[in-house]
Amino acid sequence: MRVLITGVDGHLGWTLSMYLAERGHEVAGIDDYSRRRWVGEMGSQSAIPIAQMADRLVAYREHLGQNLRFFKGDLLDYDFVLNAYKVFKPEAIVYLGEMPSAPYSMVDVHHAVDTQKNNILGTLVTLYAMKEACPECHLVKLGTMGEYGTPNVDIPEGFFEIEYRGRKDRLIFPRKAGSWYHQTKVHDTHNVEFACRIWGMRSTDIMQGVVYGTYIDAMGDDPRMRTRFDFDQSFGTAINRFCCQTVIGLPITPFGKGHQKRGFLPLRDSMQCLTIAIENPPKASEYRTFNQFEEVYDVTELAQKVQAAGKKLGLDVEVRNLENPRMEAEEHYYNPDHQHLLDLGYQPTHDMDGELEIMLKDLIPNRVRIESRKEAVFPDIQWDGTRRRSKYLTGSGQTK
Amino acid sequence: MRVLITGVDGHLGWTLSMYLAERGHEVAGIDDYSRRRWVGEMGSQSAIPIAQMADRLVAYREHLGQNLRFFKGDLLDYDFVLNAYKVFKPEAIVYLGEMPSAPYSMVDVHHAVDTQKNNILGTLVTLYAMKEACPECHLVKLGTMGEYGTPNVDIPEGFFEIEYRGRKDRLIFPRKAGSWYHQTKVHDTHNVEFACRIWGMRSTDIMQGVVYGTYIDAMGDDPRMRTRFDFDQSFGTAINRFCCQTVIGLPITPFGKGHQKRGFLPLRDSMQCLTIAIENPPKASEYRTFNQFEEVYDVTELAQKVQAAGKKLGLDVEVRNLENPRMEAEEHYYNPDHQHLLDLGYQPTHDMDGELEIMLKDLIPNRVRIESRKEAVFPDIQWDGTRRRSKYLTGSGQTK
Repeated sequence: MRVLITGVDGHLGWTLSMYLAERGHEVAGIDDYSRRRWVGEMGSQSAIPIAQMADRLVAYREHLGQNLRFFKGDLLDYDFVLNAYKVFKPEAIVYLGEMPSAPYSMVDVHHAVDTQKNNILGTLVTLYAMKEACPECHLVKLGTMGEYGTPNVDIPEGFFEIEYRGRKDRLIFPRKAGSWYHQTKVHDTHNVEFACRIWGMRSTDIMQGVVYGTYIDAMGDDPRMRTRFDFDQSFGTAINRFCCQTVIGLPITPFGKGHQKRGFLPLRDSMQCLTIAIENPPKASEYRTFNQFEEVYDVTELAQKVQAAGKKLGLDVEVRNLENPRMEAEEHYYNPDHQHLLDLGYQPTHDMDGELEIMLKDLIPNRVRIESRKEAVFPDIQWDGTRRRSKYLTGSGQTK
Repeated sequence: MRVLITGVDGHLGWTLSMYLAERGHEVAGIDDYSRRRWVGEMGSQSAIPIAQMADRLVAYREHLGQNLRFFKGDLLDYDFVLNAYKVFKPEAIVYLGEMPSAPYSMVDVHHAVDTQKNNILGTLVTLYAMKEACPECHLVKLGTMGEYGTPNVDIPEGFFEIEYRGRKDRLIFPRKAGSWYHQTKVHDTHNVEFACRIWGMRSTDIMQGVVYGTYIDAMGDDPRMRTRFDFDQSFGTAINRFCCQTVIGLPITPFGKGHQKRGFLPLRDSMQCLTIAIENPPKASEYRTFNQFEEVYDVTELAQKVQAAGKKLGLDVEVRNLENPRMEAEEHYYNPDHQHLLDLGYQPTHDMDGELEIMLKDLIPNRVRIESRKEAVFPDIQWDGTRRRSKYLTGSGQTK
């Protein structure tokens, strides 16, 4: 199939481009290197060195025997996007071209506005460009499990059968997101569902859990094929930050009580799932939602797993809870469904411990690189709009 | 109280500014005359002549004995908005500064993007500006009954007690909007709820039905005090278009089967309800929703009411159904709650027939003015993205 990936220079985008080529798909990509700029703005960089796109494309050709057709430009520029879709004629578009960080979106009014502008309007532009250039194309849209928040009831996959005062309907399950970034995904959900409803478009909206991992087989041993790995307060997930803290001898720092539960899946499984969605498109007018994660852990369990994996490699760090810069429930019920992908053949890896060992081994050679930006790992973007470094709640010693 | 109205040059905004002054409130307003430009772009104008803001402000002073403090500027310009809020120190902000037309938002990608940009980002800018300038201020936000769409269950006021697989929570009632414009209101809902949740702000989100009417007592007999009345396909509601069609001898044109049901309320009652919300603010952190309408009619009943009101004034026109340019359910269940405002003392007028007579009498002297723009009343903005004039489904004669 011809698959176009927006945000192909990013963590998932670059990885997916290789994974799909190995499966025999023809791949194109769009990017304007926003992610590199955003991480730079946070005073950080990828812990694992990544090549420039020009070199990535050469390596791609060498190892995968085909070109990745790359379009550099802005997803809010309708003429640019339309042209790319008309030229490549994608059968599936995997929309990864959004600003993906909750803290970045919470910095101030300008970051909030830029985030909502980039994400919501970019998706809207793509819906119109698809309608004009490739109306049969399947939009694989990345949402987030964070759209749902942490309601006190089970979380179905996107929709639910409502029974209300004796009558029934099937409606979008209520969303309750926890940052301006997460809110953009909620609005994308509503916009994409509407486009499918009125224009007969087809879309899979992926409510993805937290992805962790540094490596898939298609990368081989060529450093130009590696994907980025962020550890700063904005673009590094908790697990990424914990791994980098372990590598440079800092305490591992769950936020608040550390009982926040989230769904997780390894990078290789994310690739498997996205590919299943791509290769099993919905029919015209269908808007479907997959909850894409493998296992649920709370942040304390996660910290302990990283700590244990580090210990095996001779890295001995403590776990110290930090004042939570976010406003979120720290004790809550959490039971989301995730059956749709299993029904389509998804085979989970179920091996976080093994994956963590690979991650740490990939990071250890980059210790100085991480240390050179270690200030970036300490959270100071507070949900109340201030900038103030979070204090340790437990353990001994000073911040930094 | 000090009340600031965004969109003070618009249909509701200008009316509310006078209504509030008569009640003894101190009023400020923001506008950049977008509405006048949008209606001009549709090839139309207000059926009732309206004064320029400079003259409006003089008349306001003469009749109401106080100044309306007017700030001209763009609601997306953070520094401008922040300055206005810092200068006026509002105790309530009534946010009417959004692009309010479904068809306008459906014209093409650029109108869709501009609509979502203006509405969603404008609200976001105001949330931040309030947080900085007046965190105790009450945001009275205009949503729409159209956020809910037409589900097959009762519609509560904003939230519902969900019972799902044996557990319970109180969540936002699912939305299912029918245009890019209506979607902006859905996202505003989520953004404003979030701001109240994390920043302790207070807001009343008004899911308003269709407002009809030309006159409130505060206007007296000064033409400079009149508010706009649109009848073009984008900015004219069905009832406005029906009234203007009646006045210039065109058939009244319900869309499709004409069984679409909506909630309606007269302009004077909208003023009463908004004032009740303003004068009874929620407490800090509270985000509450009012469904603001009085009576439910289907579009055919509406057409017949306008036809009958016209007949009494010697205006005899037929009702002819038009091909529906929208994609919407034309037969559906509809039973929304609207108790919250009644509980706070709202006294509905319950007199659509009397109101229609006033409207037609206000429009008859402007017959030539309406006729000069009569092409604007025929719908050609189709929900499938094309421009094609809708055909008559019933009755005799040709379009136009």
